[in-house]
Parts: sequence; C-alpha cells; structure tokens
Amino acid sequence: MDALTPSGVLSARSVRYPVSIVGAGPGDPELLTVRAFSRIARADIVLRDLLVPDSLLAATGTLAEIVDVGRRCGSGESQAVRQARINGLMLEGYRGGRRVVRLKSGDPLVFGRAAEEARFLLANDVPFELVPGITAGLAAANLVQIPLTERHRSPSVLFCTGQAADGDAVTAEAWAALLRGGTTLVLYMGLAALAQIVPRLAALAPAEAIHVTAISQVSTPQQRCVTGRLNEIEDRLAADPLAQPVVFVLGLNAVPLQGLAGLVGADVVER
Amino acid sequence: MDALTPSGVLSARSVRYPVSIVGAGPGDPELLTVRAFSRIARADIVLRDLLVPDSLLAATGTLAEIVDVGRRCGSGESQAVRQARINGLMLEGYRGGRRVVRLKSGDPLVFGRAAEEARFLLANDVPFELVPGITAGLAAANLVQIPLTERHRSPSVLFCTGQAADGDAVTAEAWAALLRGGTTLVLYMGLAALAQIVPRLAALAPAEAIHVTAISQVSTPQQRCVTGRLNEIEDRLAADPLAQPVVFVLGLNAVPLQGLAGLVGADVVER
Repeated sequence: MDALTPSGVLSARSVRYPVSIVGAGPGDPELLTVRAFSRIARADIVLRDLLVPDSLLAATGTLAEIVDVGRRCGSGESQAVRQARINGLMLEGYRGGRRVVRLKSGDPLVFGRAAEEARFLLANDVPFELVPGITAGLAAANLVQIPLTERHRSPSVLFCTGQAADGDAVTAEAWAALLRGGTTLVLYMGLAALAQIVPRLAALAPAEAIHVTAISQVSTPQQRCVTGRLNEIEDRLAADPLAQPVVFVLGLNAVPLQGLAGLVGADVVER
Repeated sequence: MDALTPSGVLSARSVRYPVSIVGAGPGDPELLTVRAFSRIARADIVLRDLLVPDSLLAATGTLAEIVDVGRRCGSGESQAVRQARINGLMLEGYRGGRRVVRLKSGDPLVFGRAAEEARFLLANDVPFELVPGITAGLAAANLVQIPLTERHRSPSVLFCTGQAADGDAVTAEAWAALLRGGTTLVLYMGLAALAQIVPRLAALAPAEAIHVTAISQVSTPQQRCVTGRLNEIEDRLAADPLAQPVVFVLGLNAVPLQGLAGLVGADVVER
C-alpha cells in the first residue's frame, strides 16, 4: 500500500488514505463487520469513543496508536473543545499519511454524531468513508430475541432517544400513535429520561399493554435485562438497577420470544 | 466439535448444533459481521433467501450445501408452502446433527420474518440463535452518506415499509408528524407503493422541503441512486428507473453529505 517515489525510495508522505469513520457495533468483537475489523486491524491510529472496549481492539490484532477521545466525567473538557481536538487529530493523521480510524460505538449515523465530523472533513477536503455498524438496538433485539417488526403485528421500528421526548408534546403524541399501531420503539439514552417519558406515553397509549425490555451493556459479558409493562418498568428498575448504557425496546408486541415458549402460534398479545 | 461415544467411535448424531438465523447484511461480503461470516464458513447447510448473492457465500469459503428457499416469481409456490418447506429443512438439519444456517438478507428482525421461524423452532424444542446484520437502510445511509439522526436536526429514524402506508390514514399522519419534526424515514419495499405514499404524505407535510434518496441494490457493484424532493421523486424515478430492491431515505434533513460540500457548518436546510 505504500507508494514508491521514482527513485524507489519509500515516501510515506506522498500517500494519503481516506479517513474511515467506523461503526464498532455494540462491543462484542464478533459483531464488528468484516470491513470494520479490517480497517481497525490495518489502522495506524484509532480515535475511539468511551464505549468501545479494549477487548474489541485486541481481537483485531491492531498495532495502531489508540487515542481515547470520549468525554470522561469530571474532565472539565467541553463538547466543543473535545470535538475540535478530534477534528485536529483526524486532519493531522490524514495529512501525515496515516491510516486514521475514527471508531464510534454502534453505527456512525445512529446517534453517533458522525455527520458533524464528516462535514468537518468535507470542509477540509479530506476524503472519508463511513463504515456501518450494528447499532445497539439491533444487537439487543437479536440477542434478547425480541421481534422489531413482524407481519400483522409490528409494521415498523423507531430508533429514538430519551432527549427527544423531554418536554415535547408533539413527539410524545407521535410516539404514542406509533405504539398504538404496533410499532416497536428502540429508545437510546433513556434511563435518565424515563421518569418524564413513562407518564407522557402512559397518558396516550395503553401502558399495561406495552411491553418494555431494558437491556444493559448489550453484547458484553455484563449484558443484563429487566422487563415489565410500561406502568411497571420504573419500579422494576428501581428494585433492580442496571448499569449504563441501557437500551429500551418497547411495544405492544415487543415480547422476548423465549418468553413465549409454549404459546407459540397463538396471538398472545391482544391488540 | 464432534463428540466421541464411550467406545471412542465418532457419533455425529449425538451432537446437535443450535440453528443460526443469520443476517447477511445488504449483499457486500465485507458488511457481514464477523460472527455471520464464521457461521456461514462452518455451516453444513445454508438456507438462503433470494437477495443473498453467490459472491457473499463464496467470500466465506463455505463448503456447505446451499439451498435456495426464496420465493421466485412464477414458481406457483404459496408463502405457506414455502415456509413449511423451510421449517422442515431447519428441523431435519438440526436433528441430523448438521450446522444449519438460515441466511436472511439484512437483519433477521427488520422485515426479515425471523420471528415466525424462531417461533417454529421454539415450538419444536430446537435451540437457535439470532445473529444481527446490517439492515439495508443502515448500509445505504452510510454508503451514500446521509445522516439518519443528527443533533438539533433529526431526532430519530423510523424503519418502515411500503405496505404499511397503504390506505391507512393513522399511519400516514404519524409518519407526517415525524417528518415535520425532522425524523428520517427509511422506507423498504416502497417502489410499488410510492404512488400511494407520496400524495398521502404531501397532504400532511411540506413535500418540497422533504429530501428523498432512492438507493437501488445497496452495497453491490450495481448500487445506484436517484434523488429529489418528495414532490419530484416520482417523475425522477419514471425518467430514470431503478432496479429492485430499492430503499428510500427521506426527511427534512436527509441530504447526502457530499451534496453539502462547501456549505459546511451552515444550517442549509430550513425547518
């Protein structure tokens, strides 16, 4: 991959590689895509977010320099300062002829803020690619075996965040309308906002009919679940707290399949 | 992985492997997860849907028996007969001690009908796993570089199908409410239903402000796009038809990033 100058002397600076903005998936290295695995394995420098575990990097055998760019509590660094630092590292790496991987948890475009970084690269004439990843909600649904869509039951699936539900009546009504029609909601970053979300939705949709599964640390050895109806889930979580990050899967028909063993074929959830 | 009987004679029938229901992603073998790649590589039999290309199987080096179980036009086989055949093959393979991979395009739980097959396996006491895949909408967004979510612009993303919008006023209103709030819609199997969907949405949301990108044969060498506003997209597609399958990404802010080069940082799409 290195270029030779006419004199045959290796000239690293004459070669530049597009920056790879890569989705790392939920944490389990086996849930990396083949392309993501390969990009990490061959990287010269990896700029990783907080939620990307060491074990994932180790599994690729990468020899890259690893730079932690996630915001840590108590660091005092603002979001703007942090983002400027990440942007600077990408630019410097690219211009230095290094293979730069910007590694994000899940998928870059699903609550991953990749668009902002991509716009910075575009503005600076830095070529880049986006490598999709298994977003936490997809991984959770498959690992806990909760149907996200299903014929005659769940016509669609909405990926949303706790922030969006905060104080917005239009959003709450749209979510409730989807829930009433059987759509599955996958809620990211919802733990802190749950106290606002539950009463808003419960006022607009049948809380006792809506199944909720909270999945903590999806795909890691520490993965854990708490389940209940919408009107029960806060109490259940208070009694059995989950570690962050937590993704919620909720819907009239969002029932873990293994919980339906013995009732197979019956339309066990009334609509 | 094979068991030995007490006499030391290899007994294949005494070992049984959980059936793997595997998401193949959109078609490019590099977008398989590492786990999916490994499951296919080691399979004894692969039951594949129509949209899984030969090149994907070849890339894994699998020596498995490949059975095409997708419904082909003109085969005359009903959905029920086809499903019974698939179920029978899974059961027979499992009981015969074979490593069975049920290979589905995209992600098993996003319009993949995996839940029905999983329920059949549960009813027959067949252990199984679900392996997530990169669903076509995620792949399309990353490859064409369209933000699905973005701070202050696109609070959530809905994965939906053309069928769901057909003649259902409540669904159309919920979709329009999401669009008006900046949510991105990813529409599967929408080509045939477009003539119904566009006027319904246009009556409820600002059609000339909603960007639509239609992406054909995502991630394959034949990938192609047609873009336009909601009020233009039917004419654009009539003038420049796309081959199936096509996924649509639409939203107030669902603009391919490369189309924004030079306008970086500006809030170029008015809300």
